[in-house]
Amino acid sequence: MNSDQMNDLLQTHIPLCAFMKLTVTLLTPDSIKTTAPLEPNCNMHGTGFAGAQYSLAVATGWALVHNRLDVAGAAGQLVVKEATIHYDRPVTDVMELAANIDVSMTDHELINQLAGKGKVRIPLIVNISSKGKRCGYLEASYVVVA
Amino acid sequence: MNSDQMNDLLQTHIPLCAFMKLTVTLLTPDSIKTTAPLEPNCNMHGTGFAGAQYSLAVATGWALVHNRLDVAGAAGQLVVKEATIHYDRPVTDVMELAANIDVSMTDHELINQLAGKGKVRIPLIVNISSKGKRCGYLEASYVVVA
Repeated sequence: MNSDQMNDLLQTHIPLCAFMKLTVTLLTPDSIKTTAPLEPNCNMHGTGFAGAQYSLAVATGWALVHNRLDVAGAAGQLVVKEATIHYDRPVTDVMELAANIDVSMTDHELINQLAGKGKVRIPLIVNISSKGKRCGYLEASYVVVA
Repeated sequence: MNSDQMNDLLQTHIPLCAFMKLTVTLLTPDSIKTTAPLEPNCNMHGTGFAGAQYSLAVATGWALVHNRLDVAGAAGQLVVKEATIHYDRPVTDVMELAANIDVSMTDHELINQLAGKGKVRIPLIVNISSKGKRCGYLEASYVVVA
C-alpha cells in the first residue's frame, strides 16, 4: 500500500481522520510519517487539543501496523488494546507524527505467530512534533487477532 | 457553570468536540456525564474509533475539572499531562461517559495549594460505556498551573 492508498483508507472510513485532515506523507514497511494542520485540531487556547493529538497518533500507528500486515500478507483484525500519551509541550503549529516498527520479526515469523498463538501484540511509539520540536509521544499496544 | 454553558464552551472552542457531537448531560461540582453518537466517531468496522473514544473521554474529564475550579473560584491554566486509555470491548452504539472527582479537597485547600505550590495535580478516571456495558476507561492526570 502506498501513501495515497493509506490516505484514502483513513479518510474514507474514519470520519475523524477526514475532519482532522490527517495526511500520510511517507509509508514504508517499517516506518510512517503523517501530518495535520493545527486549525481543526486546536483547543480553546489555540494550541493542539489533547484529544486530537492522541487521535492523530493512534491512527498513525494503526496505519503503520496495518501496512506491515499487508506487506507480510497476514490477515487478521487489528485493534489497539491500551495506550499512554505524554504531553511535554504545547503544539503551536502544524503537527508532524512519525513512527517506526520493529523489523526483527520476519514476514514468515509474523504469519506463523498469528497462526500458532491466534494473535500478535505489536507495541509502538508514535512521536508528535511541531516546528521541529517533540511535543509528546504515544506508547500504544496494538494487537492483531487471527 | 451548567450543562448548557459547558456545551457551549466545548463546542464553540474545540472544533473536534463539535464534530464528535459531545454533549454534557449532567454537570455537578463533583461529577459529569456526557454522551456522543456513534456515527461521527466510528472506525472502518462501524464501531467506536479508538481516537474518538479517547477524545471524548479527555474532554469529559477536562470539563469536570474546569467546572471544579470554576466552582472553587480558582484561576489557573488547566492541561492534561499524561493519560492512559484501556479498551475492553468494542463500542457499538451511542457512547456514554462518566467521571467523578475526589471531593476530599475543599475549595479553600484547592486555592491554597494552587497559591502555595503553584500547581495542583488532579487525577481522574473517565468511564466509557455503550448499551449499559463498560467498554473502556481513561486514567488521566490533569494539572492546574497558577
